[in-house]
Amino acid sequence: MFPKEVYIKRRNQLREIMKDGIALVLGNPEAPMNYADNVYHYRQDSTFLYFFGIDHPGFAGVFDIDNNKDYIFGNDVDIDDIIWMGPKPSVADQAARFGVENTAPFNDLKSFVAEAIKEGRKIHFLPVYRAENKILIHEMIGTPLNAIKENASEEFVKAVISLREIKDEYEIKELERAAAIGYEIHTTAMKMAKDGVYEREIAGECEAIALRAGGLLSFPAIVSRRGETLHNHEHGNLLKAGDLLLVDSGAETDSHYASDNTRTIPVGGKFSQKQKEIYEIVLAGINKGNELIRPWVTYQSIHLEVCKVLAKGLKEVGLMKGDVEEAVKAGAHALFMPHGLGHMMGLDVHDMENFGENLVGYDEKVQRIDQFGTAYLRLGKELKPGFVITNEPGIYFIPALMDKWKQEGLHLDYINYDKVYEYRNFGGIRLEDDVLVTEQGNRLIGKRIPISIEEVENIMR
Amino acid sequence: MFPKEVYIKRRNQLREIMKDGIALVLGNPEAPMNYADNVYHYRQDSTFLYFFGIDHPGFAGVFDIDNNKDYIFGNDVDIDDIIWMGPKPSVADQAARFGVENTAPFNDLKSFVAEAIKEGRKIHFLPVYRAENKILIHEMIGTPLNAIKENASEEFVKAVISLREIKDEYEIKELERAAAIGYEIHTTAMKMAKDGVYEREIAGECEAIALRAGGLLSFPAIVSRRGETLHNHEHGNLLKAGDLLLVDSGAETDSHYASDNTRTIPVGGKFSQKQKEIYEIVLAGINKGNELIRPWVTYQSIHLEVCKVLAKGLKEVGLMKGDVEEAVKAGAHALFMPHGLGHMMGLDVHDMENFGENLVGYDEKVQRIDQFGTAYLRLGKELKPGFVITNEPGIYFIPALMDKWKQEGLHLDYINYDKVYEYRNFGGIRLEDDVLVTEQGNRLIGKRIPISIEEVENIMR
Repeated sequence: MFPKEVYIKRRNQLREIMKDGIALVLGNPEAPMNYADNVYHYRQDSTFLYFFGIDHPGFAGVFDIDNNKDYIFGNDVDIDDIIWMGPKPSVADQAARFGVENTAPFNDLKSFVAEAIKEGRKIHFLPVYRAENKILIHEMIGTPLNAIKENASEEFVKAVISLREIKDEYEIKELERAAAIGYEIHTTAMKMAKDGVYEREIAGECEAIALRAGGLLSFPAIVSRRGETLHNHEHGNLLKAGDLLLVDSGAETDSHYASDNTRTIPVGGKFSQKQKEIYEIVLAGINKGNELIRPWVTYQSIHLEVCKVLAKGLKEVGLMKGDVEEAVKAGAHALFMPHGLGHMMGLDVHDMENFGENLVGYDEKVQRIDQFGTAYLRLGKELKPGFVITNEPGIYFIPALMDKWKQEGLHLDYINYDKVYEYRNFGGIRLEDDVLVTEQGNRLIGKRIPISIEEVENIMR
Repeated sequence: MFPKEVYIKRRNQLREIMKDGIALVLGNPEAPMNYADNVYHYRQDSTFLYFFGIDHPGFAGVFDIDNNKDYIFGNDVDIDDIIWMGPKPSVADQAARFGVENTAPFNDLKSFVAEAIKEGRKIHFLPVYRAENKILIHEMIGTPLNAIKENASEEFVKAVISLREIKDEYEIKELERAAAIGYEIHTTAMKMAKDGVYEREIAGECEAIALRAGGLLSFPAIVSRRGETLHNHEHGNLLKAGDLLLVDSGAETDSHYASDNTRTIPVGGKFSQKQKEIYEIVLAGINKGNELIRPWVTYQSIHLEVCKVLAKGLKEVGLMKGDVEEAVKAGAHALFMPHGLGHMMGLDVHDMENFGENLVGYDEKVQRIDQFGTAYLRLGKELKPGFVITNEPGIYFIPALMDKWKQEGLHLDYINYDKVYEYRNFGGIRLEDDVLVTEQGNRLIGKRIPISIEEVENIMR
């Protein structure tokens, strides 16, 4: 929790950017696991946290733009709540902590919105990812359930993005706290990655480190000897010496700021020659990204530069061939790196992804490239000081994808399929740093997690 | 996963019990945390697991009772799914694993249901706790969103309960596996509960133990020096020698069977005299419960017998007074134990709580008692062989509740308020075992976690 002036300033800025109407920020309800009262770890909505701060279920915030006022709607606890869930400050006291003076019971939100509709005022709401809030929007505003996405207010979304995308000094400190937990996660995983250990033992420890620090994982940990599956959440495999283990994991502080790092490490502590060759290419790629990140450059251009570094390295080991520039232009590298270089990070690990990647990651100047691989780039637009982004190149050998491309005869000028098939069971390597764009260039968030072959082998010794 | 014959038998039984129509079992979708693609650990619906087995999102099962057939609806993966989430067996192969021959794409469910409606057939569905599935029911059947609960099929619910409440030998083995993980959770917590440790460090370790074993916690761990808050999910406190630490935690196996145990332990390893006195009363209560649990006795009567043991003990230490039988009849003991003795346990830690406690825990013969305290008893009906239930008495000193009762002058004949106020900061003690009702009486599920003062102090030494 930051000083209340931080929240007041954010809300004032938001109201200044918006033209008129009322703008709703629905907090998240509890998320039931297998029945209503058996819930997951509570996660408040990030935009609600950003403007209204309260980290409990059952709240909504409203900007009254026409009258330059803010409201928090929520219910005070009764004696049964106290017996089961413990005492809580009143809604008024909780709201005051974040500088909001106007509060009312949660159910008054419906009449408040109904009144505004009757007065012909504009009702802005944000895209909704929790189905409970879809139902709430539908009930309050009458928006059909299957048309909520297209009726969300682009004006409101753009205003929120323009504020949240620039991280202030308070936020950077929290991101650094998250990075320190992430550092512990990754160095612990390195020490645990031995022959005979199950992936789930390491994944459980990653999560425990985040929980012990008072927060959560910022996303489900990827801890897999099948690193070629980009978002592999299965942890059932037994590790064997010689495997590559891909660990993509990050923590979220108790204030819900995220970290997100990837390292790929040799089970048993020693990379093979074949692994080293591919690893060094990915390392050269991430280092090129870190070298290029600076304000007023598009991330799309950096993505493509890094892809060229990868393609060049892949050519050197004989997996690709032909002209590197042309190969990347044609998208041939995407057989090995079928994803984008990175994304925004902040209160969400993919920051503001609930608003849609196009509004967060692109703008009028930079449009998404519709080519397999680069099409998955979440962030393409010009970087600004205060952006926090990930830089995460990878090289993967995905059997289903190589079969498909080979069968379709794709990019025969640029890909040595015979050689590729020698790597069929290689797996995948990804490396990922978190980077703050500064006025002059960039700096990493937190201390860099061991990344050179020597550093990794040393810590695993 | 049990042999497929187990699932075939369960479905045959279900279809035999039901009269006609089609009966839907919606699987759970993913549960988004802070945006659609950032999800919690996946938890399949327990009834879906029970009858259809598949432990992945995106499925629905249908009983066609009129035609004595079962269906599974779900989508096969495409190349993008394989790249991001890894290869998966086809829907047909997954369904065959559980003996289901008829499969179709998920979207065909809508036309299948529409067809059945057109033919005038009855559409049975179960109560819904995931909002996504409320929307799905609303879209398929037209049930208003706010009337889904009352339109769920009581016939279907009762049929499912009649099967799921009796645990077979396969299920009991899984419950014992869960108990072994629970044993490790509790003995680890005992070893960690030292002066200067944060609650969250122990809570994180509880969760890690469950994750390392390949499953999840069966519910959010309660690890609190404020044990008088019954479902306290805050873990921010620093433990001090002399505190009581209440740990109510259980694991769920990779097959999703639960354990649920509570122990209350002295931080630093030694109970004070005052703590011992209250602890021994709760221990006498749980032991009385374990002594009384047997088939064809109502759990309501056992709850009340245990409450009498607590009241008797509380009278001996001067906290209660007057006639014990009368005091319990009047509900005076509920100042100290404002909850019920226990609940069903199985695939859900509160088994089938999504169907409503009244249909699971009560019947025509045993109605819920509407008195503060006993009103919270989740299970009141006659026990049967094969029931698995919790036995979890407690004594709590809840400041807000004692203030309220004293102010209202409640039960002045039975409660020594002056003495009660000497315990204002005492906290709470709860002890909980998991019990299988057998033909002859009962046995505990798994090895009993250390519970006597001597056993607890020994392990904490």
